[in-house]
Amino acid sequence: MDTIKIIKIGGNVINDQQQLIAFLKEFSRVAGKKILVHGGGTIATQIAGQLGIEQQMIEGRRITDAETLKVVTMVYAGLANKQIVSQLQALGCNALGVTGADGHLIKAHKRVATIDYGFVGDVDAVEHEKILQLLSIFDTLVIAPISMDQQGQLLNTNADTIAQEVAKALAQHHATDLFYSFEKDGVLLDVNDPNSVIKEITTTYYEELKANDKIFAGMIPKLDNAFAAINAGVKAVHIGNAQNIVAMTEGKSGTKIIA
Amino acid sequence: MDTIKIIKIGGNVINDQQQLIAFLKEFSRVAGKKILVHGGGTIATQIAGQLGIEQQMIEGRRITDAETLKVVTMVYAGLANKQIVSQLQALGCNALGVTGADGHLIKAHKRVATIDYGFVGDVDAVEHEKILQLLSIFDTLVIAPISMDQQGQLLNTNADTIAQEVAKALAQHHATDLFYSFEKDGVLLDVNDPNSVIKEITTTYYEELKANDKIFAGMIPKLDNAFAAINAGVKAVHIGNAQNIVAMTEGKSGTKIIA
Repeated sequence: MDTIKIIKIGGNVINDQQQLIAFLKEFSRVAGKKILVHGGGTIATQIAGQLGIEQQMIEGRRITDAETLKVVTMVYAGLANKQIVSQLQALGCNALGVTGADGHLIKAHKRVATIDYGFVGDVDAVEHEKILQLLSIFDTLVIAPISMDQQGQLLNTNADTIAQEVAKALAQHHATDLFYSFEKDGVLLDVNDPNSVIKEITTTYYEELKANDKIFAGMIPKLDNAFAAINAGVKAVHIGNAQNIVAMTEGKSGTKIIA
Repeated sequence: MDTIKIIKIGGNVINDQQQLIAFLKEFSRVAGKKILVHGGGTIATQIAGQLGIEQQMIEGRRITDAETLKVVTMVYAGLANKQIVSQLQALGCNALGVTGADGHLIKAHKRVATIDYGFVGDVDAVEHEKILQLLSIFDTLVIAPISMDQQGQLLNTNADTIAQEVAKALAQHHATDLFYSFEKDGVLLDVNDPNSVIKEITTTYYEELKANDKIFAGMIPKLDNAFAAINAGVKAVHIGNAQNIVAMTEGKSGTKIIA
Protein backbone atom coordinates (compact mmCIF):
# COMPACT_ATOMS: atom_id res chain seq x y z
CA MET A 1 0.00 0.00 0.00
CA ASP A 2 1.33 3.45 -0.95
CA THR A 3 0.89 6.49 1.26
CA ILE A 4 -2.67 6.60 2.61
CA LYS A 5 -4.42 9.89 1.85
CA ILE A 6 -6.92 11.25 4.35
CA ILE A 7 -9.06 13.98 2.84
CA LYS A 8 -11.41 16.16 4.86
CA ILE A 9 -14.12 18.09 3.00
CA GLY A 10 -15.92 21.03 4.52
CA GLY A 11 -19.61 21.67 4.97
CA ASN A 12 -19.80 23.98 1.95
CA VAL A 13 -19.06 21.04 -0.38
CA ILE A 14 -21.75 18.91 1.31
CA ASN A 15 -24.39 21.66 1.13
CA ASP A 16 -24.18 22.13 -2.61
CA GLN A 17 -25.10 19.05 -4.66
CA GLN A 18 -23.28 20.33 -7.78
CA GLN A 19 -20.10 21.15 -5.84
CA LEU A 20 -20.27 17.73 -4.18
CA ILE A 21 -20.58 15.89 -7.49
CA ALA A 22 -17.72 17.91 -9.01
CA PHE A 23 -15.58 17.18 -5.95
CA LEU A 24 -16.38 13.43 -5.97
CA LYS A 25 -15.43 13.20 -9.66
CA GLU A 26 -12.03 14.66 -8.79
CA PHE A 27 -11.74 12.58 -5.61
CA SER A 28 -12.43 9.32 -7.48
CA ARG A 29 -9.34 10.07 -9.60
CA VAL A 30 -7.00 10.39 -6.60
CA ALA A 31 -4.56 7.49 -6.81
CA GLY A 32 -4.14 4.89 -4.09
CA LYS A 33 -5.99 4.09 -0.87
CA LYS A 34 -7.87 7.02 0.60
CA ILE A 35 -10.20 8.06 3.38
CA LEU A 36 -12.80 10.78 2.94
CA VAL A 37 -13.98 12.49 6.13
CA HIS A 38 -17.08 14.58 5.59
CA GLY A 39 -18.79 17.14 7.73
CA GLY A 40 -22.50 17.59 7.88
CA GLY A 41 -23.04 21.03 6.42
CA THR A 42 -26.26 22.85 7.13
CA ILE A 43 -28.65 20.03 6.10
CA ALA A 44 -28.89 18.76 9.68
CA THR A 45 -29.89 22.22 10.91
CA GLN A 46 -32.51 22.49 8.16
CA ILE A 47 -34.01 19.09 8.96
CA ALA A 48 -33.96 19.75 12.71
CA GLY A 49 -35.88 22.95 11.96
CA GLN A 50 -38.45 21.09 9.82
CA LEU A 51 -38.87 18.50 12.58
CA GLY A 52 -39.43 21.31 15.10
CA ILE A 53 -36.31 20.47 17.11
CA GLU A 54 -35.07 23.72 18.56
CA GLN A 55 -31.34 24.28 18.15
CA GLN A 56 -29.83 25.47 21.42
CA MET A 57 -26.79 27.67 20.98
CA ILE A 58 -24.48 28.67 23.84
CA GLU A 59 -21.79 31.25 23.11
CA GLY A 60 -22.33 30.69 19.39
CA ARG A 61 -21.86 26.94 19.62
CA ARG A 62 -24.52 24.38 18.94
CA ILE A 63 -25.58 22.04 21.75
CA THR A 64 -26.18 18.42 20.71
CA ASP A 65 -29.16 17.33 22.81
CA ALA A 66 -30.70 13.84 22.43
CA GLU A 67 -33.07 14.89 19.63
CA THR A 68 -30.37 16.79 17.75
CA LEU A 69 -28.10 13.73 18.01
CA LYS A 70 -30.79 11.66 16.27
CA VAL A 71 -31.00 14.20 13.44
CA VAL A 72 -27.22 14.37 13.11
CA THR A 73 -27.04 10.55 13.01
CA MET A 74 -29.72 10.43 10.31
CA VAL A 75 -28.18 13.17 8.18
CA TYR A 76 -24.45 12.48 8.57
CA ALA A 77 -24.43 8.66 8.78
CA GLY A 78 -27.52 8.11 6.62
CA LEU A 79 -28.16 10.74 3.97
CA ALA A 80 -24.74 12.38 3.43
CA ASN A 81 -22.63 9.25 3.90
CA LYS A 82 -24.70 7.06 1.57
CA GLN A 83 -25.05 9.78 -1.06
CA ILE A 84 -21.27 10.08 -1.14
CA VAL A 85 -20.73 6.30 -1.17
CA SER A 86 -23.25 5.74 -3.97
CA GLN A 87 -21.82 8.55 -6.14
CA LEU A 88 -18.32 7.16 -5.64
CA GLN A 89 -19.48 3.66 -6.59
CA ALA A 90 -20.99 5.08 -9.79
CA LEU A 91 -17.58 6.67 -10.49
CA GLY A 92 -15.87 3.28 -10.16
CA CYS A 93 -14.44 3.94 -6.72
CA ASN A 94 -15.26 1.07 -4.37
CA ALA A 95 -16.16 2.97 -1.20
CA LEU A 96 -17.42 1.75 2.18
CA GLY A 97 -19.16 4.22 4.49
CA VAL A 98 -18.68 4.08 8.25
CA THR A 99 -19.07 6.05 11.46
CA GLY A 100 -16.82 5.78 14.50
CA ALA A 101 -19.43 3.45 16.03
CA ASP A 102 -18.97 0.84 13.30
CA GLY A 103 -16.37 -1.62 14.52
CA HIS A 104 -15.89 1.02 17.25
CA LEU A 105 -13.30 2.48 14.88
CA ILE A 106 -13.27 5.82 16.73
CA LYS A 107 -13.40 5.61 20.51
CA ALA A 108 -14.35 8.82 22.27
CA HIS A 109 -15.78 10.24 25.48
CA LYS A 110 -18.50 12.81 26.04
CA ARG A 111 -16.87 16.23 26.31
CA VAL A 112 -16.39 17.49 29.86
CA ALA A 113 -16.41 21.29 29.90
CA THR A 114 -17.88 24.20 31.85
CA ILE A 115 -20.45 24.50 29.06
CA ASP A 116 -22.47 21.29 28.60
CA TYR A 117 -22.26 20.71 24.85
CA GLY A 118 -24.47 17.65 25.13
CA PHE A 119 -23.62 14.54 23.12
CA VAL A 120 -20.35 15.82 21.72
CA GLY A 121 -17.32 13.55 21.56
CA ASP A 122 -13.61 14.06 22.13
CA VAL A 123 -11.57 11.31 20.49
CA ASP A 124 -9.52 8.92 22.68
CA ALA A 125 -8.33 6.29 20.22
CA VAL A 126 -8.63 5.07 16.64
CA GLU A 127 -8.66 1.39 15.64
CA HIS A 128 -5.86 1.76 13.09
CA GLU A 129 -5.59 -1.99 12.50
CA LYS A 130 -9.22 -2.46 11.50
CA ILE A 131 -9.08 0.66 9.29
CA LEU A 132 -6.04 -0.78 7.48
CA GLN A 133 -7.88 -4.11 7.08
CA LEU A 134 -10.89 -2.30 5.58
CA LEU A 135 -8.59 -0.38 3.22
CA SER A 136 -7.12 -3.69 2.07
CA ILE A 137 -10.63 -4.72 0.93
CA PHE A 138 -12.01 -1.40 -0.36
CA ASP A 139 -10.47 1.55 -2.28
CA THR A 140 -11.97 4.16 -0.02
CA LEU A 141 -13.48 4.62 3.42
CA VAL A 142 -16.01 7.40 3.84
CA ILE A 143 -16.23 8.48 7.48
CA ALA A 144 -19.23 10.36 8.90
CA PRO A 145 -18.32 12.52 11.91
CA ILE A 146 -19.92 10.45 14.67
CA SER A 147 -17.91 8.65 17.32
CA MET A 148 -18.93 6.47 20.27
CA ASP A 149 -17.99 5.98 23.92
CA GLN A 150 -17.39 2.67 25.72
CA GLN A 151 -21.06 2.49 26.80
CA GLY A 152 -22.33 2.65 23.21
CA GLN A 153 -23.33 6.31 23.35
CA LEU A 154 -23.11 7.92 19.91
CA LEU A 155 -21.35 11.30 19.95
CA ASN A 156 -21.38 14.16 17.46
CA THR A 157 -17.73 14.86 16.68
CA ASN A 158 -15.84 17.57 14.83
CA ALA A 159 -14.87 16.26 11.38
CA ASP A 160 -11.51 18.12 11.34
CA THR A 161 -10.64 16.35 14.60
CA ILE A 162 -11.68 12.95 13.24
CA ALA A 163 -9.52 13.45 10.13
CA GLN A 164 -6.57 14.48 12.30
CA GLU A 165 -6.96 11.62 14.81
CA VAL A 166 -7.34 9.00 12.09
CA ALA A 167 -4.25 10.40 10.32
CA LYS A 168 -2.22 10.38 13.54
CA ALA A 169 -3.22 6.81 14.40
CA LEU A 170 -2.50 5.44 10.91
CA ALA A 171 0.79 7.37 10.71
CA GLN A 172 2.18 5.22 13.53
CA HIS A 173 1.99 2.19 11.23
CA HIS A 174 1.85 3.46 7.67
CA ALA A 175 2.92 6.50 5.62
CA THR A 176 -0.02 8.89 5.81
CA ASP A 177 -0.81 12.30 4.30
CA LEU A 178 -3.63 14.53 5.53
CA PHE A 179 -5.53 16.98 3.29
CA TYR A 180 -7.79 19.71 4.60
CA SER A 181 -9.87 20.99 1.73
CA PHE A 182 -11.91 24.17 1.76
CA GLU A 183 -13.04 26.90 -0.62
CA LYS A 184 -9.68 28.74 -0.93
CA ASP A 185 -6.64 27.61 -2.90
CA GLY A 186 -4.43 27.34 0.18
CA VAL A 187 -2.93 29.43 2.96
CA LEU A 188 -2.62 32.97 1.60
CA LEU A 189 0.26 35.35 2.31
CA ASP A 190 -2.14 38.20 1.58
CA VAL A 191 -5.74 37.38 2.53
CA ASN A 192 -6.97 39.80 -0.19
CA ASP A 193 -4.93 38.18 -2.94
CA PRO A 194 -6.14 34.68 -3.92
CA ASN A 195 -2.95 34.24 -5.94
CA SER A 196 -0.70 34.62 -2.88
CA VAL A 197 -0.88 30.92 -1.90
CA ILE A 198 2.12 29.87 0.18
CA LYS A 199 3.53 26.68 -1.37
CA GLU A 200 5.18 25.25 1.72
CA ILE A 201 5.24 26.08 5.42
CA THR A 202 7.80 24.58 7.78
CA THR A 203 7.75 24.96 11.57
CA THR A 204 10.40 27.68 11.38
CA TYR A 205 8.64 29.56 8.58
CA TYR A 206 5.32 29.33 10.49
CA GLU A 207 6.89 30.97 13.56
CA GLU A 208 8.32 33.69 11.34
CA LEU A 209 4.96 34.29 9.59
CA LYS A 210 3.12 34.46 12.91
CA ALA A 211 5.76 36.83 14.40
CA ASN A 212 5.22 39.16 11.41
CA ASP A 213 1.38 38.93 11.59
CA LYS A 214 1.33 37.44 8.10
CA ILE A 215 -1.17 34.69 8.92
CA PHE A 216 -4.91 35.40 8.79
CA ALA A 217 -6.24 34.81 12.33
CA GLY A 218 -8.87 32.30 11.13
CA MET A 219 -6.12 30.09 9.68
CA ILE A 220 -4.16 29.79 12.93
CA PRO A 221 -6.26 26.98 14.54
CA LYS A 222 -6.15 25.03 11.24
CA LEU A 223 -2.37 25.44 11.03
CA ASP A 224 -1.86 24.59 14.71
CA ASN A 225 -3.85 21.39 14.06
CA ALA A 226 -1.77 20.69 10.98
CA PHE A 227 1.50 21.00 12.93
CA ALA A 228 0.06 18.83 15.75
CA ALA A 229 -0.57 16.12 13.13
CA ILE A 230 2.96 16.53 11.71
CA ASN A 231 4.47 16.31 15.19
CA ALA A 232 2.49 13.11 15.75
CA GLY A 233 4.05 11.45 12.70
CA VAL A 234 1.85 12.44 9.76
CA LYS A 235 4.16 12.86 6.73
CA ALA A 236 2.61 16.06 5.38
CA VAL A 237 -0.56 18.07 5.78
CA HIS A 238 -1.93 19.90 2.75
CA ILE A 239 -4.47 22.72 2.83
CA GLY A 240 -6.21 23.69 -0.38
CA ASN A 241 -9.23 23.83 -2.64
CA ALA A 242 -11.61 20.85 -2.64
CA GLN A 243 -12.05 21.21 -6.39
CA ASN A 244 -8.28 20.73 -6.97
CA ILE A 245 -7.92 17.60 -4.89
CA VAL A 246 -6.03 15.56 -7.52
CA ALA A 247 -3.46 18.35 -8.00
CA MET A 248 -3.26 18.74 -4.21
CA THR A 249 -2.45 15.07 -3.70
CA GLU A 250 0.23 15.40 -6.39
CA GLY A 251 1.74 18.40 -4.60
CA LYS A 252 0.77 20.77 -7.45
CA SER A 253 -1.85 22.80 -5.61
CA GLY A 254 -2.46 24.10 -2.10
CA THR A 255 -0.14 24.69 0.82
CA LYS A 256 2.05 21.88 2.10
CA ILE A 257 2.80 21.83 5.82
CA ILE A 258 5.93 19.92 6.81
CA ALA A 259 8.11 19.64 9.88
CA MET B 1 -15.57 -20.04 10.48
CA ASP B 2 -18.59 -22.04 11.68
CA THR B 3 -21.99 -21.80 10.03
CA ILE B 4 -22.84 -18.15 9.32
CA LYS B 5 -26.16 -17.11 10.82
CA ILE B 6 -28.25 -14.54 8.99
CA ILE B 7 -30.98 -13.12 11.19
CA LYS B 8 -33.79 -10.90 9.94
CA ILE B 9 -35.76 -8.85 12.46
CA GLY B 10 -39.13 -7.36 11.72
CA GLY B 11 -40.34 -3.80 11.97
CA ASN B 12 -42.12 -4.43 15.28
CA VAL B 13 -38.77 -4.99 17.01
CA ILE B 14 -37.34 -1.77 15.51
CA ASN B 15 -40.36 0.34 16.51
CA ASP B 16 -40.19 -0.48 20.21
CA GLN B 17 -36.96 0.64 21.92
CA GLN B 18 -37.43 -1.81 24.83
CA GLN B 19 -38.10 -4.77 22.55
CA LEU B 20 -35.08 -3.80 20.46
CA ILE B 21 -32.76 -3.66 23.47
CA ALA B 22 -34.07 -7.00 24.78
CA PHE B 23 -33.56 -8.53 21.33
CA LEU B 24 -30.04 -7.15 20.93
CA LYS B 25 -29.04 -8.55 24.36
CA GLU B 26 -30.12 -11.99 23.15
CA PHE B 27 -28.59 -11.49 19.71
CA SER B 28 -25.20 -10.52 21.18
CA ARG B 29 -25.13 -13.95 22.85
CA VAL B 30 -25.62 -15.87 19.58
CA ALA B 31 -22.40 -17.80 18.95
CA GLY B 32 -20.27 -17.40 15.84
CA LYS B 33 -20.28 -15.01 12.92
CA LYS B 34 -23.65 -13.44 12.20
CA ILE B 35 -25.46 -10.94 10.02
CA LEU B 36 -28.41 -8.92 11.27
CA VAL B 37 -30.78 -7.61 8.60
CA HIS B 38 -33.17 -5.01 9.93
CA GLY B 39 -36.28 -3.46 8.49
CA GLY B 40 -37.26 0.10 9.03
CA GLY B 41 -40.45 -0.14 11.04
CA THR B 42 -42.80 2.81 11.14
CA ILE B 43 -40.23 5.46 12.14
CA ALA B 44 -39.61 6.41 8.49
CA THR B 45 -43.34 6.99 7.95
CA GLN B 46 -43.51 9.11 11.12
CA ILE B 47 -40.54 11.25 10.10
CA ALA B 48 -41.80 11.63 6.52
CA GLY B 49 -45.07 12.87 8.04
CA GLN B 50 -43.26 15.37 10.27
CA LEU B 51 -41.27 16.61 7.27
CA GLY B 52 -44.50 17.06 5.32
CA ILE B 53 -43.58 14.43 2.72
CA GLU B 54 -46.80 12.89 1.55
CA GLN B 55 -46.77 9.09 1.40
CA GLN B 56 -48.25 7.86 -1.87
CA MET B 57 -49.89 4.48 -1.63
CA ILE B 58 -51.03 2.45 -4.66
CA GLU B 59 -53.01 -0.72 -4.00
CA GLY B 60 -51.93 -0.61 -0.37
CA ARG B 61 -48.24 -0.41 -1.21
CA ARG B 62 -46.02 2.52 -0.48
CA ILE B 63 -44.35 4.34 -3.37
CA THR B 64 -40.75 5.38 -2.75
CA ASP B 65 -40.44 8.75 -4.46
CA ALA B 66 -37.19 10.79 -4.33
CA GLU B 67 -38.09 12.54 -1.07
CA THR B 68 -39.23 9.31 0.60
CA LEU B 69 -35.98 7.65 -0.48
CA LYS B 70 -34.06 10.37 1.37
CA VAL B 71 -36.10 9.75 4.53
CA VAL B 72 -35.67 5.99 4.25
CA THR B 73 -31.90 6.43 3.77
CA MET B 74 -31.72 8.68 6.84
CA VAL B 75 -33.82 6.42 9.04
CA TYR B 76 -32.67 2.96 7.96
CA ALA B 77 -28.99 3.60 7.20
CA GLY B 78 -28.53 6.38 9.76
CA LEU B 79 -30.75 6.20 12.81
CA ALA B 80 -31.78 2.53 13.00
CA ASN B 81 -28.50 1.06 11.75
CA LYS B 82 -26.27 3.11 14.05
CA GLN B 83 -28.54 2.63 17.08
CA ILE B 84 -28.27 -1.13 16.56
CA VAL B 85 -24.51 -1.02 15.95
CA SER B 86 -23.85 1.13 19.03
CA GLN B 87 -26.03 -1.04 21.30
CA LEU B 88 -24.25 -4.16 20.05
CA GLN B 89 -20.84 -2.58 20.67
CA ALA B 90 -21.91 -1.80 24.25
CA LEU B 91 -22.86 -5.49 24.59
CA GLY B 92 -19.35 -6.54 23.51
CA CYS B 93 -20.38 -7.56 20.00
CA ASN B 94 -18.09 -5.96 17.42
CA ALA B 95 -20.59 -4.93 14.75
CA LEU B 96 -20.16 -3.02 11.50
CA GLY B 97 -23.20 -1.41 9.88
CA VAL B 98 -23.61 -1.31 6.11
CA THR B 99 -26.12 -0.82 3.32
CA GLY B 100 -26.04 -2.54 -0.05
CA ALA B 101 -24.39 0.62 -1.46
CA ASP B 102 -21.32 0.21 0.78
CA GLY B 103 -18.76 -1.73 -1.21
CA HIS B 104 -21.71 -2.26 -3.57
CA LEU B 105 -22.37 -5.37 -1.48
CA ILE B 106 -25.93 -5.70 -2.81
CA LYS B 107 -26.38 -5.00 -6.53
CA ALA B 108 -29.94 -4.35 -7.61
CA HIS B 109 -32.06 -2.74 -10.30
CA LYS B 110 -35.07 -0.44 -10.04
CA ARG B 111 -38.20 -2.56 -10.09
CA VAL B 112 -39.96 -2.72 -13.44
CA ALA B 113 -43.67 -3.34 -12.96
CA THR B 114 -47.03 -2.11 -14.20
CA ILE B 115 -47.23 -0.04 -11.02
CA ASP B 116 -44.32 2.41 -10.67
CA TYR B 117 -43.11 1.74 -7.14
CA GLY B 118 -40.47 4.46 -7.47
CA PHE B 119 -36.99 3.86 -6.08
CA VAL B 120 -37.54 0.24 -5.07
CA GLY B 121 -34.86 -2.35 -5.73
CA ASP B 122 -34.93 -5.97 -6.85
CA VAL B 123 -31.68 -7.75 -5.98
CA ASP B 124 -29.43 -9.04 -8.79
CA ALA B 125 -26.29 -10.12 -6.96
CA VAL B 126 -24.54 -10.12 -3.60
CA GLU B 127 -20.77 -9.62 -3.14
CA HIS B 128 -20.31 -12.76 -1.05
CA GLU B 129 -16.54 -12.49 -1.07
CA LYS B 130 -16.44 -9.00 0.46
CA ILE B 131 -19.08 -9.98 3.02
CA LEU B 132 -16.94 -12.96 4.08
CA GLN B 133 -13.89 -10.67 4.30
CA LEU B 134 -15.84 -8.25 6.52
CA LEU B 135 -16.98 -11.14 8.72
CA SER B 136 -13.35 -12.19 9.12
CA ILE B 137 -12.65 -8.76 10.68
CA PHE B 138 -15.88 -8.15 12.63
CA ASP B 139 -18.21 -10.42 14.66
CA THR B 140 -21.36 -9.06 13.08
CA LEU B 141 -22.58 -7.18 10.04
CA VAL B 142 -25.73 -5.10 10.44
CA ILE B 143 -27.42 -4.56 7.08
CA ALA B 144 -29.91 -1.74 6.46
CA PRO B 145 -32.40 -2.56 3.67
CA ILE B 146 -31.07 -0.27 0.96
CA SER B 147 -29.46 -1.56 -2.22
CA MET B 148 -27.97 0.22 -5.23
CA ASP B 149 -27.95 -0.10 -9.01
CA GLN B 150 -24.93 0.14 -11.35
CA GLN B 151 -25.48 3.90 -11.82
CA GLY B 152 -25.22 4.60 -8.09
CA GLN B 153 -28.96 4.98 -7.53
CA LEU B 154 -29.92 4.01 -3.98
CA LEU B 155 -32.98 1.74 -3.84
CA ASN B 156 -35.36 0.94 -0.99
CA THR B 157 -35.41 -2.86 -0.74
CA ASN B 158 -37.46 -5.42 1.15
CA ALA B 159 -35.48 -6.64 4.16
CA ASP B 160 -36.80 -10.24 3.91
CA THR B 161 -35.49 -10.33 0.34
CA ILE B 162 -32.10 -8.93 1.35
CA ALA B 163 -31.75 -11.56 4.09
CA GLN B 164 -32.70 -14.30 1.64
CA GLU B 165 -30.40 -13.09 -1.16
CA VAL B 166 -27.42 -12.67 1.19
CA ALA B 167 -28.06 -16.17 2.60
CA LYS B 168 -28.29 -17.70 -0.88
CA ALA B 169 -25.09 -15.99 -2.06
CA LEU B 170 -23.08 -16.97 1.03
CA ALA B 171 -24.46 -20.53 0.94
CA GLN B 172 -22.63 -21.12 -2.35
CA HIS B 173 -19.31 -20.77 -0.49
CA HIS B 174 -19.98 -21.33 3.18
CA ALA B 175 -22.44 -23.18 5.45
CA THR B 176 -25.23 -20.66 6.08
CA ASP B 177 -28.41 -20.69 8.18
CA LEU B 178 -31.19 -18.14 7.78
CA PHE B 179 -33.48 -17.01 10.61
CA TYR B 180 -36.69 -15.05 10.10
CA SER B 181 -37.76 -13.67 13.45
CA PHE B 182 -41.15 -12.18 14.19
CA GLU B 183 -43.60 -11.86 17.10
CA LYS B 184 -44.83 -15.48 17.11
CA ASP B 185 -42.98 -18.56 18.37
CA GLY B 186 -42.92 -20.24 14.97
CA VAL B 187 -45.22 -21.66 12.31
CA LEU B 188 -48.41 -22.73 14.09
CA LEU B 189 -50.44 -25.84 13.25
CA ASP B 190 -53.44 -24.06 14.78
CA VAL B 191 -53.31 -20.29 14.33
CA ASN B 192 -55.38 -19.86 17.53
CA ASP B 193 -53.05 -21.98 19.65
CA PRO B 194 -49.64 -20.35 20.30
CA ASN B 195 -48.44 -23.69 21.68
CA SER B 196 -48.99 -25.52 18.39
CA VAL B 197 -45.57 -24.60 16.93
CA ILE B 198 -44.48 -27.06 14.24
CA LYS B 199 -40.90 -28.11 15.05
CA GLU B 200 -39.80 -29.04 11.56
CA ILE B 201 -41.21 -28.71 8.06
CA THR B 202 -39.78 -30.64 5.11
CA THR B 203 -40.80 -30.12 1.48
CA THR B 204 -43.05 -33.20 1.61
CA TYR B 205 -44.67 -32.17 4.91
CA TYR B 206 -45.22 -28.62 3.57
CA GLU B 207 -47.12 -29.99 0.56
CA GLU B 208 -49.21 -32.16 2.88
CA LEU B 209 -49.97 -29.22 5.22
CA LYS B 210 -50.96 -27.00 2.31
CA ALA B 211 -53.14 -29.75 0.76
CA ASN B 212 -54.99 -30.04 4.09
CA ASP B 213 -55.34 -26.24 4.51
CA LYS B 214 -53.29 -26.41 7.71
CA ILE B 215 -51.11 -23.38 6.94
CA PHE B 216 -52.31 -19.88 7.81
CA ALA B 217 -52.50 -18.00 4.48
CA GLY B 218 -50.23 -15.20 5.73
CA MET B 219 -47.43 -17.70 6.36
CA ILE B 220 -47.40 -19.09 2.82
CA PRO B 221 -45.24 -16.34 1.19
CA LYS B 222 -42.77 -16.60 4.11
CA LEU B 223 -42.58 -20.39 3.75
CA ASP B 224 -42.30 -20.23 -0.03
CA ASN B 225 -39.37 -17.84 0.47
CA ALA B 226 -37.86 -20.20 3.01
CA PHE B 227 -38.03 -23.15 0.61
CA ALA B 228 -36.59 -20.99 -2.19
CA ALA B 229 -33.60 -20.31 0.08
CA ILE B 230 -33.26 -24.02 0.92
CA ASN B 231 -33.42 -24.97 -2.74
CA ALA B 232 -30.66 -22.43 -3.42
CA GLY B 233 -28.31 -24.10 -0.95
CA VAL B 234 -29.11 -22.53 2.44
CA LYS B 235 -28.68 -25.28 5.06
CA ALA B 236 -31.78 -24.49 7.10
CA VAL B 237 -34.27 -21.67 7.53
CA HIS B 238 -35.73 -21.06 10.97
CA ILE B 239 -38.86 -19.05 11.71
CA GLY B 240 -39.52 -17.98 15.28
CA ASN B 241 -39.71 -15.37 18.01
CA ALA B 242 -37.14 -12.54 17.96
CA GLN B 243 -36.92 -12.71 21.74
CA ASN B 244 -35.83 -16.41 21.64
CA ILE B 245 -33.08 -15.93 19.08
CA VAL B 246 -30.38 -17.82 21.04
CA ALA B 247 -32.65 -20.86 21.51
CA MET B 248 -33.63 -20.58 17.84
CA THR B 249 -30.03 -20.69 16.66
CA GLU B 250 -29.53 -23.74 18.88
CA GLY B 251 -32.55 -25.47 17.31
CA LYS B 252 -34.50 -25.31 20.60
CA SER B 253 -37.17 -22.81 19.54
CA GLY B 254 -39.10 -21.94 16.40
CA THR B 255 -39.84 -23.89 13.25
CA LYS B 256 -37.02 -25.38 11.24
CA ILE B 257 -37.48 -25.56 7.47
CA ILE B 258 -35.34 -28.17 5.71
CA ALA B 259 -35.28 -29.84 2.31
